[in-house]
Amino acid sequence: MNPDTNSSPTLALTFDVDTEEVWLAEDPRNATRPVLLSQGGYEMRRGLPEVLRLLRSNEVTGTFFVPGRVAERHPDAVRAIADDGHEVACHGYTHRSPADLPLDEETEELTRALAAFDRLGIQVSGYRSPSWELSASSLGILEKAGIRYSSNFMDDVVPYIHPGTRIVELPVHWALDDAAHFWFSNESWSKKISTNSEVEEIWTDELLGIASIGGCCILTLHPQIIGRPGRLRLLERFIARAREVPGLRLATCADIAASTLPSEEGPRS
Amino acid sequence: MNPDTNSSPTLALTFDVDTEEVWLAEDPRNATRPVLLSQGGYEMRRGLPEVLRLLRSNEVTGTFFVPGRVAERHPDAVRAIADDGHEVACHGYTHRSPADLPLDEETEELTRALAAFDRLGIQVSGYRSPSWELSASSLGILEKAGIRYSSNFMDDVVPYIHPGTRIVELPVHWALDDAAHFWFSNESWSKKISTNSEVEEIWTDELLGIASIGGCCILTLHPQIIGRPGRLRLLERFIARAREVPGLRLATCADIAASTLPSEEGPRS
Amino acid sequence: MNPDTNSSPTLALTFDVDTEEVWLAEDPRNATRPVLLSQGGYEMRRGLPEVLRLLRSNEVTGTFFVPGRVAERHPDAVRAIADDGHEVACHGYTHRSPADLPLDEETEELTRALAAFDRLGIQVSGYRSPSWELSASSLGILEKAGIRYSSNFMDDVVPYIHPGTRIVELPVHWALDDAAHFWFSNESWSKKISTNSEVEEIWTDELLGIASIGGCCILTLHPQIIGRPGRLRLLERFIARAREVPGLRLATCADIAASTLPSEEGPRS
Amino acid sequence: MNPDTNSSPTLALTFDVDTEEVWLAEDPRNATRPVLLSQGGYEMRRGLPEVLRLLRSNEVTGTFFVPGRVAERHPDAVRAIADDGHEVACHGYTHRSPADLPLDEETEELTRALAAFDRLGIQVSGYRSPSWELSASSLGILEKAGIRYSSNFMDDVVPYIHPGTRIVELPVHWALDDAAHFWFSNESWSKKISTNSEVEEIWTDELLGIASIGGCCILTLHPQIIGRPGRLRLLERFIARAREVPGLRLATCADIAASTLPSEEGPRS
Repeated sequence: MNPDTNSSPTLALTFDVDTEEVWLAEDPRNATRPVLLSQGGYEMRRGLPEVLRLLRSNEVTGTFFVPGRVAERHPDAVRAIADDGHEVACHGYTHRSPADLPLDEETEELTRALAAFDRLGIQVSGYRSPSWELSASSLGILEKAGIRYSSNFMDDVVPYIHPGTRIVELPVHWALDDAAHFWFSNESWSKKISTNSEVEEIWTDELLGIASIGGCCILTLHPQIIGRPGRLRLLERFIARAREVPGLRLATCADIAASTLPSEEGPRS
Repeated sequence: MNPDTNSSPTLALTFDVDTEEVWLAEDPRNATRPVLLSQGGYEMRRGLPEVLRLLRSNEVTGTFFVPGRVAERHPDAVRAIADDGHEVACHGYTHRSPADLPLDEETEELTRALAAFDRLGIQVSGYRSPSWELSASSLGILEKAGIRYSSNFMDDVVPYIHPGTRIVELPVHWALDDAAHFWFSNESWSKKISTNSEVEEIWTDELLGIASIGGCCILTLHPQIIGRPGRLRLLERFIARAREVPGLRLATCADIAASTLPSEEGPRS
Repeated sequence: MNPDTNSSPTLALTFDVDTEEVWLAEDPRNATRPVLLSQGGYEMRRGLPEVLRLLRSNEVTGTFFVPGRVAERHPDAVRAIADDGHEVACHGYTHRSPADLPLDEETEELTRALAAFDRLGIQVSGYRSPSWELSASSLGILEKAGIRYSSNFMDDVVPYIHPGTRIVELPVHWALDDAAHFWFSNESWSKKISTNSEVEEIWTDELLGIASIGGCCILTLHPQIIGRPGRLRLLERFIARAREVPGLRLATCADIAASTLPSEEGPRS
Repeated sequence: MNPDTNSSPTLALTFDVDTEEVWLAEDPRNATRPVLLSQGGYEMRRGLPEVLRLLRSNEVTGTFFVPGRVAERHPDAVRAIADDGHEVACHGYTHRSPADLPLDEETEELTRALAAFDRLGIQVSGYRSPSWELSASSLGILEKAGIRYSSNFMDDVVPYIHPGTRIVELPVHWALDDAAHFWFSNESWSKKISTNSEVEEIWTDELLGIASIGGCCILTLHPQIIGRPGRLRLLERFIARAREVPGLRLATCADIAASTLPSEEGPRS
């Protein structure tokens, strides 16, 4: 049952740069709600610059999943990410779920997104679905488009190769996502906002548990959420905590994927 | 990407004096629910007097956003706020969202509210929407009516001027709102009531993070929520904690707005 | 604004003995859900006896709000409550909200409930609505039926007399209700179950805050909730904590109401 | 009111092996949502092997409630459970609630499940409903099929015999279920994910409270939830904590049921 693994404990800090797209994809009528949208606006105005500053001062290289349309609208911001040495990867074109789209639209979303990165001279090798959901066709579409890894599934903590493909999976989980803990919805008033120390406990327990298995801890963050001034303090503490874990290395998703995929052999079945 | 700022770290304690209006605006049928309404009734009977007493004994000056109809129904209470040296600002007329109103009704809400404050001899310069949402016309309507600042958007932690206007924005956030942490809905039973120490941690982390950026921490409170006897203890502790932050000053929104707006120049574009 | 008060700090432990009635009132189809109903069944089988044992060993006298139909179905349990020296008060007949009933049905619910207590030889003087909601007619109906106090409103922390009546109000609040913190709904999976220490902090802060105002802390508990073995430990700790508060006395609701109502004078207006 | 009991304090660790079945039963359309389903896929790939390893290294014997269809699809996994000395019990055939099925379908679900275990040479004596709900016919169907105990009801903390049957009840509770604390729904974003220390406090308080009554603490776990690397740390800590409770024994459900049922006598009425 238990898949073999040779991987060593790794932590990847990943950032989904959703800006206003996440709010528009949720409900197009949000275009007429300036205050609600301003939560996404925080990202370019304040959250992303602060996150980049923090990574720089802590000498950490991260992976930024960017929707194609965000790359088109904010080319300077995406270039700033790349110029700091971070990996840029694909987070759809709009922030719509591929699982809800017909095949041709799903393909077109990916094509348009990759073209946007091409125009910026940025090569991307990874894909994370905006909704953490895929259609039955997604892996085929991704492979054909040259994508080398997916970071969407929740069925393991050790990277693996999707059977029948050469696509590496870098598994994620809701508990390792800042939004699951910090999101507040004005519509439903349904979820308590967690404290930094609550989230730090959850992430640290997962990190230590995953490290003891020799797996990969893929942390999913959002500059509009983790980039709040109070939460940047959590991120800095967590990086410091991670550096105390014996044998743990910090890496980008592309690095992890490259070391997972056997260079000359076919995929593991 | 990152807007320049010369502002020094500031904390503003703001209070939305919603009374029963917030419940009536949510659902007019609440008029027949005396117990549900009594949560709002707590404000005039107990919450507001206790908040004023606490601010007095801690020598803090706050900003009170009051709906016009509350000013009409409780003139003595609003005068008591002003007599204690606090700033009174506009929180709509009823507690309805401007985003849901046609243009003429939105304008009329503001006109009626300002007239109510005029009749009390109180000059207001700031506006917070009852729902933290605006329409596309709101900033224009506010500017025409002489409003100098808005405290609604969530896209920064440093005050800024809305492009094309002379209206200063004093940005807010759900995590800095007492209702987001303490609200309990009898209808949906959906949200855990946070403890004082949970909220204290969140507010303190935000305050310290914002101070380190040189921004403004705008705390949004409600006398019917923070005015509960147990939560007044949190407010007092938080004021004491804030006073330990090096270089932080406590100010009213009007003061912050005045120091943000260049006195003789046009608006920054 | 601030009503005068001569009351001294008091804590009342009150218990709503809902049994299966609360589940049946919520949805009559629950009659065919034996496991869901068994949460209410816990009350008579285990929760109530354990609560009575704990009060006895801690020498505390409480107030038990009992629906009339529960008194009919479990006469021995209600007699056991009274025999231990606790106050029995009225919690409706079924567990339906008076706010949802036509006037004649609301009156009949009260009449049937009082008759049930009469048949047990138990005199009741207080009323708590099953839903913490009243109709516009409720206070009149209660006064006519000889009820001396209500424990429903949330607009103060000091007992007061409802204007135009001789009915004393002993105000409550969601944060002082065990269900608000511990309820878990299998239908909506919407609310985190709080820990004992979270609830202890909230109740202690409220108790200390109310005591400093000279008010009454009315704690609303449910034997099917607080009677879980783990939560009885919280109740015992909280009683011990309350006994450390200088000047605080523990009392039944009837005692507090009697000391609030001026013996010979008319009601305060 | 209080049922007699001779039982000594006992802790049973039970695991519901739901795999993808729980997601498919909730909504058959989930079959087209590979990422959502991968949360269930975690169970066979990683969660169950890690749980078995932890139990082995801590020398604890547990009870695994398995849906019949899971036994058919993953026979090696179910044999591995049995080979480690754990008890295997019945968790329905699919993960559908018996309360929602017509009588013949409810009967057929049980028949098919028992047949699946028979084919694996595994004798099962216990039943837990996939939804913790039963129909009015369930106990009769279970008794006829030779089931000796149910672990579904929430009306006590001491095992008892269902009146008119020979079926022992081993009562459970939401607060003693890992899902109630850790479940995160991507659909409703409604519930905070609890920390390990929050859950440890709740479980420890319940365990100590139940032990003081001489009852049985039936912990309900799910390898796809408690099997997350971070949460395995909680399980290990809780086992260590339980071993410090004086007089507490760890047992399987079958053992507890056998010691509850009087060997030669008829059922207690």
